[in-house]
Amino acid sequence: MRNTSLTLYGESVSSRFLIGSALYSSPAIMQAAIEASGADWVTLSLRRQNPAEQSGHSFWQQIQATGCRLLPNTAGCKTAQEAINLAEMSREIFNTAWIKLEVIGDDYNLQPDPFALVEAATELIKRGFKVLPYSTDDLILAQRLLDAGCQAVMPWGAPIGTGQGLLNKYALKTLRDRLPDTPLIIDAGLGAPSQAAEAMEMGFDGVLLNTAVAKATDAVGMARAFKLAIEAGRLAFEAGLMVKRQTASPSTTPVGLPFWHQKPSV
Amino acid sequence: MRNTSLTLYGESVSSRFLIGSALYSSPAIMQAAIEASGADWVTLSLRRQNPAEQSGHSFWQQIQATGCRLLPNTAGCKTAQEAINLAEMSREIFNTAWIKLEVIGDDYNLQPDPFALVEAATELIKRGFKVLPYSTDDLILAQRLLDAGCQAVMPWGAPIGTGQGLLNKYALKTLRDRLPDTPLIIDAGLGAPSQAAEAMEMGFDGVLLNTAVAKATDAVGMARAFKLAIEAGRLAFEAGLMVKRQTASPSTTPVGLPFWHQKPSV
Amino acid sequence: MRNTSLTLYGESVSSRFLIGSALYSSPAIMQAAIEASGADWVTLSLRRQNPAEQSGHSFWQQIQATGCRLLPNTAGCKTAQEAINLAEMSREIFNTAWIKLEVIGDDYNLQPDPFALVEAATELIKRGFKVLPYSTDDLILAQRLLDAGCQAVMPWGAPIGTGQGLLNKYALKTLRDRLPDTPLIIDAGLGAPSQAAEAMEMGFDGVLLNTAVAKATDAVGMARAFKLAIEAGRLAFEAGLMVKRQTASPSTTPVGLPFWHQKPSV
Amino acid sequence: MRNTSLTLYGESVSSRFLIGSALYSSPAIMQAAIEASGADWVTLSLRRQNPAEQSGHSFWQQIQATGCRLLPNTAGCKTAQEAINLAEMSREIFNTAWIKLEVIGDDYNLQPDPFALVEAATELIKRGFKVLPYSTDDLILAQRLLDAGCQAVMPWGAPIGTGQGLLNKYALKTLRDRLPDTPLIIDAGLGAPSQAAEAMEMGFDGVLLNTAVAKATDAVGMARAFKLAIEAGRLAFEAGLMVKRQTASPSTTPVGLPFWHQKPSV
Repeated sequence: MRNTSLTLYGESVSSRFLIGSALYSSPAIMQAAIEASGADWVTLSLRRQNPAEQSGHSFWQQIQATGCRLLPNTAGCKTAQEAINLAEMSREIFNTAWIKLEVIGDDYNLQPDPFALVEAATELIKRGFKVLPYSTDDLILAQRLLDAGCQAVMPWGAPIGTGQGLLNKYALKTLRDRLPDTPLIIDAGLGAPSQAAEAMEMGFDGVLLNTAVAKATDAVGMARAFKLAIEAGRLAFEAGLMVKRQTASPSTTPVGLPFWHQKPSV
Repeated sequence: MRNTSLTLYGESVSSRFLIGSALYSSPAIMQAAIEASGADWVTLSLRRQNPAEQSGHSFWQQIQATGCRLLPNTAGCKTAQEAINLAEMSREIFNTAWIKLEVIGDDYNLQPDPFALVEAATELIKRGFKVLPYSTDDLILAQRLLDAGCQAVMPWGAPIGTGQGLLNKYALKTLRDRLPDTPLIIDAGLGAPSQAAEAMEMGFDGVLLNTAVAKATDAVGMARAFKLAIEAGRLAFEAGLMVKRQTASPSTTPVGLPFWHQKPSV
Repeated sequence: MRNTSLTLYGESVSSRFLIGSALYSSPAIMQAAIEASGADWVTLSLRRQNPAEQSGHSFWQQIQATGCRLLPNTAGCKTAQEAINLAEMSREIFNTAWIKLEVIGDDYNLQPDPFALVEAATELIKRGFKVLPYSTDDLILAQRLLDAGCQAVMPWGAPIGTGQGLLNKYALKTLRDRLPDTPLIIDAGLGAPSQAAEAMEMGFDGVLLNTAVAKATDAVGMARAFKLAIEAGRLAFEAGLMVKRQTASPSTTPVGLPFWHQKPSV
Repeated sequence: MRNTSLTLYGESVSSRFLIGSALYSSPAIMQAAIEASGADWVTLSLRRQNPAEQSGHSFWQQIQATGCRLLPNTAGCKTAQEAINLAEMSREIFNTAWIKLEVIGDDYNLQPDPFALVEAATELIKRGFKVLPYSTDDLILAQRLLDAGCQAVMPWGAPIGTGQGLLNKYALKTLRDRLPDTPLIIDAGLGAPSQAAEAMEMGFDGVLLNTAVAKATDAVGMARAFKLAIEAGRLAFEAGLMVKRQTASPSTTPVGLPFWHQKPSV
């Protein structure tokens, strides 16, 4: 069993649920969903601030009203340099060294570019950032990110926004087994609380998601559902799951007939 | 979205988690686990009362101390007549018309015998029992049980004690879709809270299990994990899950460059 | 390893692929596909003979031209009596005691009705039929059919026409393991040759299908693909599949550096 | 539908099954299995030649006796430089510019190292090799290999020697869809002919494997099983698989009662 508190770059994080701030049907629903999620951290992107609509400022205020810490991301960046530039701007604007590093390698599956990701992570770590890299489930890539100085890795479950869940459990299990001391947070692709619970049962340290909450019919209810599921999965991991069996095993072991029948009728 | 309270034979049940009372490492752990589960109902078998060890009475007292309602079962019965007899004895001893009806058709996979199950259910309904039949995921079998007067059906997820989860989601989904107004409770085969959450997300009305809690390293922690997962799954069902997509979709839609870049340089 | 010839009711069957005769885009394509399949047996239904169109006779002639044996079925029958009547008519018209027994329990998933199926099988066996019952994957149902005198059982992979493949491999594996000496033929639900190969690798004795061939873009090519896949799966079953491993294992075990390096440099 | 002949670096390959030469219980069985496979190409490693045992020469003769072309591999290499060196030696010894490029990134899962793989492929292409890179299922990695000049990519199904099959069908399907004109050969991880058939049904251009044949109880029978399955899968791909359906669809559409009943009895 592992320690129940999650530590990232030396800082303790109380909730294992990290949540995104995009795609909600209204700022009020976003705020309520974030609160229902119990998250400590909310990711957001500088790119969403549109001054033409003067929406940026109020959007940011809504998030701050939740009391969560801001975790800027580099969503939409396609090269290491672009991501580095946006990280620097985010550090200045949001006054934080934390960055969720995304370097997208493909416009269709929105997967991380392993090569540019390592390049950007290496540079950002040098510049003093606390980098949380959005990664694939490739063990070698994870090791390179750790070699670059990252103190956590965030493998995807599935492509962003698909809700497909944990597509490659074998690879994820390998990551977890081989990097037992690295904080590993499943980032992207989850569509249902049961999938988040399963990730936690496998021993992952946290879950980051956005679409599955924001695109639910009732985003606030779904945020709470994920909160409970993530707690459930973590609890189950700590409590030690039963071992699967191939063959049935009775939960009730009969001791013969009901007891009064065992008495001699005398 | 469906009504959030579960009604069985006209009675409202507050928790959607029904729990078993076998296989715990001690009566004290059983009691603590049942309490942690938040269950209203606890299944138990007359067969486990062994008067030679005088264990029956104290076992029963332990369960009663939890404040839960007793749901006697006919675990281990292999014929309709045997099950009917045990149901009658259970009604007398436990002073309840409720019965979880098990008629086992095979010693190895412990599956229900569809034929004997319908026979026993038909007779027990006639005799005034409130029958909760442990069933397979066969739609026709479920319909026969309803025809016999059962007001709920309890399909298995997998064979008892295996922890394999929802083996045939297609069949279970068919059951749920075709019997939208029948309380359907997944009974047996679940091994992890994520599986219970998934059952609830699919719209099942409740979950009954025993082994996955009793055989966990920490049964009390696992009982709580299942409680949360079942709540999470139900909440998610009510909140409306996002639709799965085949292709990725960005959660952050860029509005071009970060906002201060959009300002004219003046 | 099991004997490589399939025997049904004492008669040897040379091909393990049984094929249906419905849904083809033309009689000529049907005939060519059946020939490409290498099947010995072709199922057909009296119900498809429509004398108003005088189509029945020519359809039957097309099938006879393939040289295959006819296996009449009771497709579309919903009660035991209906199936028995159609079987009797088929015996008379087609001059054969063989019958593929279908008793459909539900108009939507077209599943067998376990209760009516046993009833019809029992009666038809008494009347001297050689019954091949279309069944679910329920072990108890299979045992009842054997008790009734059936000498083979045909469990479904998935509902007719869905192409979903082997939906419940656990149940199918249980059937195979528990009934090692019973000819078991997967009937319905397969959509791709790989699925047929997998069924054969699991030790099933044959495959019966129709839609996946008839609804392929090129039915004749697909018939041949299934033929090869079924042979491949059977061969693999007999050749003994490697055991799956959780961890990687090199196929090439290095003996150090390439060989000339091992020579002393002198 | 795609052209039925596979072309690699401008050369036509008649069999879509490429086979390995390691792990067989004897050279005679290896030779017989390779012949039964119908493969044109056999992979082998310089590393396996052990002159101390004088086994290298006879081993190579056995392979040449099959009439297959030799495809040297760099199994066991862990750095780009090591792989490049071994490729050069192989070119000299085996007198071929073809190389199956493996650069292993991890001793436990034996996965390709994406970074070193691209580095080695880039250099080898420059030096005039015809590189067939053993890759993961990562789309970006595949694109980098193509950018480096590779004219084919060989994604894994699962880690070498595990027999786990196609672990991430989503990623593989993405690869296939996004690189429609690139020869893609599934290399490693397959354990059963049904898995090879499925890969071919998905549109992959070929299959390379070793362990599943060599470690079968009867390697020669299994080689033939894979041969048939790969042909079956390819045929099915070309013939156009039926579309999967969620709901059942009768293969036999009744036209009412059997025909003589429709006639007036007169």
